[in-house]
Formats: sequence, structure tokens, C-alpha cells
Amino acid sequence: MTTTNAFFRSRWVEVPGNVSELPGGLPRGFTAAGVACGIKPSGNLDLGLLVSGAPATTSAARFTSSGTQAAPVLLCRERVTLSGIRAVVVNSGNANAATGRPGYENAAKMQGAAALASRCSEGEVAVASTGVIGVPLPVSSVMTGIVRATHALRADGEVEFARAIRTTDSVDKHACIDVALEAGVVRLTAQAKGAGMISPNFATLLCFVQTDAAMSPETCDLLLGVTVKRSFERISVDGQLSTSDTVILQASGTSGVQVEPETEDEVRFGEAMDAVLRQLALNIVRDGEGARRVGRVIVRGGREDVVHRVARAVADSPLVKTALYGGDPNWGRIVQAVGMAMPGTAPLAVDVAIEGVEVCRRGQLVPHDADALRAAVTGEEIEYEIGLPGEGAETELYFSDLGHEYVTLNAEYTT
Amino acid sequence: MTTTNAFFRSRWVEVPGNVSELPGGLPRGFTAAGVACGIKPSGNLDLGLLVSGAPATTSAARFTSSGTQAAPVLLCRERVTLSGIRAVVVNSGNANAATGRPGYENAAKMQGAAALASRCSEGEVAVASTGVIGVPLPVSSVMTGIVRATHALRADGEVEFARAIRTTDSVDKHACIDVALEAGVVRLTAQAKGAGMISPNFATLLCFVQTDAAMSPETCDLLLGVTVKRSFERISVDGQLSTSDTVILQASGTSGVQVEPETEDEVRFGEAMDAVLRQLALNIVRDGEGARRVGRVIVRGGREDVVHRVARAVADSPLVKTALYGGDPNWGRIVQAVGMAMPGTAPLAVDVAIEGVEVCRRGQLVPHDADALRAAVTGEEIEYEIGLPGEGAETELYFSDLGHEYVTLNAEYTT
Repeated sequence: MTTTNAFFRSRWVEVPGNVSELPGGLPRGFTAAGVACGIKPSGNLDLGLLVSGAPATTSAARFTSSGTQAAPVLLCRERVTLSGIRAVVVNSGNANAATGRPGYENAAKMQGAAALASRCSEGEVAVASTGVIGVPLPVSSVMTGIVRATHALRADGEVEFARAIRTTDSVDKHACIDVALEAGVVRLTAQAKGAGMISPNFATLLCFVQTDAAMSPETCDLLLGVTVKRSFERISVDGQLSTSDTVILQASGTSGVQVEPETEDEVRFGEAMDAVLRQLALNIVRDGEGARRVGRVIVRGGREDVVHRVARAVADSPLVKTALYGGDPNWGRIVQAVGMAMPGTAPLAVDVAIEGVEVCRRGQLVPHDADALRAAVTGEEIEYEIGLPGEGAETELYFSDLGHEYVTLNAEYTT
Repeated sequence: MTTTNAFFRSRWVEVPGNVSELPGGLPRGFTAAGVACGIKPSGNLDLGLLVSGAPATTSAARFTSSGTQAAPVLLCRERVTLSGIRAVVVNSGNANAATGRPGYENAAKMQGAAALASRCSEGEVAVASTGVIGVPLPVSSVMTGIVRATHALRADGEVEFARAIRTTDSVDKHACIDVALEAGVVRLTAQAKGAGMISPNFATLLCFVQTDAAMSPETCDLLLGVTVKRSFERISVDGQLSTSDTVILQASGTSGVQVEPETEDEVRFGEAMDAVLRQLALNIVRDGEGARRVGRVIVRGGREDVVHRVARAVADSPLVKTALYGGDPNWGRIVQAVGMAMPGTAPLAVDVAIEGVEVCRRGQLVPHDADALRAAVTGEEIEYEIGLPGEGAETELYFSDLGHEYVTLNAEYTT
């Protein structure tokens, strides 16, 4: 847990004592594969298939709330039994978004082919696509890829699967842990993609989570809901909501270990899953050439809606993000972002501290050791605390910096 | 009007026929000056004073709605008769923001000194400051500067005044026109600052407008309100609301030409002022090293609030802005931004055209000549049209691109 190559490496993730990190291997009941089907001109892996062999597999899912959802998202919401997803088929390199009725039909073809290959019904197959928007999906290549992936399915195929769902992610993002519960040991694996600062289109988030614990669909839904709220909903890369965000949890039950509602084991499993998803979320924020630093903004005050709005304003401010990139403790930009999020409240009694150094109290500068503060903001993780009038509400957001590589990749990439 | 050095140069500004551009010279009754008082380490001009000698001068003002307003903004709102502003004193290099009670007292000292120097009452003097946040104002330097500026006041001092209010603007921003009304010819001048893409702190906007027309405070307020809505409220540099935005219109009446309410002359004067403020707003968006292109997004649909939200989402998207910078017709990013601004509406029938080329109809890609489109987005001004379901609502926003110079200046500048 303390080596730098370990999966858990942020000071902001608490790793429960009942969790053991493993090099890899899917939970019992699952197989996966990643192949190259020719969507990416580079010839890199671009088609992933993940299948649970257990007919009693339970699941839960979350999707983007965008008004311009990609065809696979629309298909999943309309034609998939979200409490019983057996298989997941994903392509990268093309988002199948803004493709209209033909795009929807292509997503349905992917679903049908994956169902045949996985020996499930079509309603048990979720579909996801990520990549460029507004280009017709080369569906025959995808079909060939699904056939090839079916033959490549393996119990330790999650690394190829994780690679196949990447777009411009600089590293694979996957986790494998064992979780010791009172009822026995279960495995939990997860694969994610999120291009963070280097996304040429936008930071589409895909995350697939598997366990061999047995749990009801309601438990799946509860655990996924809570952990997504504390992880992927608490990050901001460039403030841009994707057409394609998809998160799915599948529980095969193959371990025979049951996670019952409102038990100590449910709490323990939830804490383990929380740690995995938070670290994956932080990895997404951190990923990307030149994304030097990750910021965490904590906002406390009297109103739930206001602390959220202020946190979002700080995390999405290009001025705060460029200062983070430059290692500049420019707290005036924090004050400015807070004021923007709270119009009509002037003069506002706002407190600001950076890495524990108080710089502003009740709206007024506090003399401090500027050199020490400057030194404190050159690490990998920088923490900003904001205090607003009132008490009882608190939130946090993790955000990436804004550097030259973001501009280069997003300006010079051509669709 | 057709030379490139002319003030009016955007295809998006309609210049009325009764307007003549002039090289400079304030309207009768006004004098101005800009001096260096030592706030800026560079020794550049940093203190501006502008005075109307006419006791009957009328005025109107608009300020930032930020919750963390700078001390001079708080002072203007509390202690200035906004319908009768005679003098304006401005410093650059220090925003006098997040400076608490001592900051407020310093703003009051500036007001008092400028009142003495301009032979007005304190309530007739507006104060503005722009620059770094959270650093105490060097008030004794400012006092010395006010005395020096008083001796430098000139009828053609508006260029020095415009220079003195700059922070990192790459060029002075000022306009001088004569407007032919039925009742006679009046002069209209304006000086603005807006650091646009290169702001090291944020895009604080200051704009001061003068005329020798005579008009009631109510007419001033009406004209300023309408023209600000169509200019400075329709631009986005980095989506960041400043602590210090201030816009003031002063009418000395010295020409003897009266602009009466609900007359043809009111309309004509308003159109001229509209053209000046729109061009100044576009200049602010365009300013900055490396700000290659200006975007205009027009959104049409059935709901007023929705078209505004969508326009803002497109104009503030770092993905759209980097594509604009890179000359990349990446319309998928427009679709994504629209979807983000309209959650829960999928599948959304959105239309998108870029420089008149239809690329997306009812949410689905439209085949088009990609090479022609790519060539069309390499100019200085790029137009995006978005159609949403419904009719009757329409808005527009002008926005800058996001390039390397923004990152360099905002990341490597140190407070």
C-alpha cells in the first residue's frame, strides 16, 4: 500500500484494513477481452467485451444526464434490463453520438452480436461507445471485433479490456482487490477510462465494476449510487458533461458470499468500493500529459446548494486551474470565483486556506509567509478550504490543472 | 470606415450612417489625464483622472454583481450619487479587493482627494481599481498620483487616461465619434480596459463613456442599460465574473443639444452608442497575445432562459474554445455543450451550422464538404448558429479562443 506503484496512492483515499490489493484477475464468473477491430487508425485495441457466465448476475447502472446522449446510452436506457446486465460491449475511437436513427440501429446491432456471442438475451447486454462525435460508426468492423473478442475471453482479460476502452488516456486504469467480509472473501475489480486533461473531444467517463459477491439489484443500486456520488460526481476535468458517461456494477454471486442489506458486510463492501472508485476518479483527474497537479476544494457553509455551486465555480475556473498548473498560490482567484458563484451577497465574509495556510478571513487578506505558501503549492495534490457564512453544509471536488498540453491536444487534434 | 486601422472593424457591428469616426478629443466639458504613480513596477501609467467641468452633468453606472466586490465598487454603490457623477478616478495594478475595512477607507481617500482636485463634492466622484487581488493598496502613491493627474488634465487627455487604466491589455481601447442628431452634432467618446485572454487575474472590465449631449439621468440609465446588455453582457473571455467591473456614462450637456426621451434623436444616439460599446466589447474579446479568433454563437429556440444557458455553455466550453484557437471545425463539441446545458432532454433535436454550413440537423450529422468547412474556420471571426426546438427566443454571445498564451500568462504570472 505504500509503494508508489500501488493502485491506492492518494492521501485523499482511505483504504479500509480489510482490503488487499492484487495484481489482477477478474472475480469468479467473469471473463473479458480487448481486441483491435480497426476503428482507431493507430491499430490500438478498440473493442472490449466483458461477460458474466452466471445467469443470476445482478447489476446497476448510471448514465450521463446530457440532453444530447449518444446512441448507446439511449439504447441502454430503453432496451436493457439495468438490474440484470450480463455482458458489456464497448468500442473506443467513435462515440456513436449525433448519429441519429442510423446510430441507434448500429448500437442495437452491437447489442445483438454481443448477446449471441455471450449467450445472453439482448436485454442483458449493455453497450457503450467513446471517441469522436458526429462520425458514423464503422459497424461492420465492430461486428468482426465482437466475434474476435468472444474467442479471446479470459478470466484475466480485464487489462486488455481496460486498454480497449481507452481513447487518449495515457495509462490503463484498472483495479483489483480482495475484500474480507464476515461471510467470506470477495473480489472486486474495476476498469475505467477518462481522458482527463488530454481528451481531444471531452472527458467521457466509462467505468465497469465487477464482483463475485452475491447481492440484490437494490443493493447494487444503492452501493453504486453512493459511491458514484463520492467519486465520479466529485471530479471536474474541464467542466464538460459528456454525451456518453456510463458506469455499471455487476455482481455475479459466484463466490457464494452474500452481501445482505443493512449489515456490517454491506458497509465493509461499500467502503472498499468507495476507495476503489475514489482512487479511479482521482486517476482520471490526474491523467494526461502535463496534468501536473490535482486540486481538492472543500467548501463549508450554511447552505447545501451554495457550497456545491461554489465548489464547482472554483474547480471549473480556468484562472484557478492555470494557477494550479503554474504552482502559483493565487488565492485572489479563489475569492473571485466564490464571489461569482454568490452574486448579490457583497460584502461576503469568506475564509480561504491553501494547504492549511490561512490567507483570507472574513473577506480580508491575512498576512502570511508567502514563500512558505508558494513552496506548499508545488506538490502533486493541493488542498483549498473555503469557509462561507453559516454551518452544516459541506462538499468537496477534485479537479485537474489547465496546462499547455490541454491546449495543444485540444486545439491541434483534428477530427 | 473601411481601412483596417479604423475603430469599427467587425462585420458584427452595424455602424449608423450619422456617425463619423475621429482621431480623438473629449466631448466639450471633459478633461482627462493618465500618470504613473508607482503602483506598477514597470513604471507604466497607472492612475487616471477624468473630470466634467459642467455642474449639471448627468450620469448612470453599472457594476459587477459579484459577492466579493472590490472596495471601490462597494464605495460607489454606497457613497456616490450615480445619477450625477462628475469625476472618475481609477488606478490599475491593484484591485483593492479582499482588502476589508482598510481597503474601503483607502477607496474613500481616493474619492476625497479626487473631489478636492476636481472641485466637486465627494458624492460626485466615482472610484475604480483594477489589478491584483488581496494586496493592500499603496494609497500614498495613489494620492501623489491624483495631485499630479490634476495638473495634467487636458481636453485630449483620453488616450493617456485609457492607457492608465490598462493592466495587461495589449493595446489601448478608446473610441471617438461625432453623432449627427436632428438637434445638432454631439460627440461621444469611450475608454475601456479588458485584459481578455491575457488577464493575469481575470478579465476585469472597466468602461467610461462621455458625451456633450444633454440628457436626463433617466435617459442616461436607459441608454447605458440597453447598450451594456447588447455589448459587455454578451461577451465571455474566460467565463469569470470580476470583483471590479464598472461601466459609467456621463453627459455634460455642454453641446446644448438635448436628447429627449422617446424621440428620433434618442434612438440615433442609442444606435451610435450601441455600435461603440459593441466594438469595444469585441476588442476586449479579441485582445491578447495569441487570441487568434473571436467566436459568435447565436442560439434560437422556444425558451428565453434556455437559449441563454446554451449560449453560455458553448462560449465558456474550453473544448469549443481550444477548437476555435486551433481552427478546428469540431462541431461535436458544440453538440456536447448544448447537451450539457439541457440535461434530461435526450434525444434532443438540435441543429448546428458553422459559418453558414449546416453540420447537424435534428441531432444527426449532415454530410458536408469537410475541407470547405475547415477553410471557413481559419478567419478572425467565426460564427456558430444553434437551433433548438421551439421559436421566439434568440440570443448571441461573443467569445475568445483558448490558446497557449492564456496558459502561459495565467500560469506563470506570479502575484
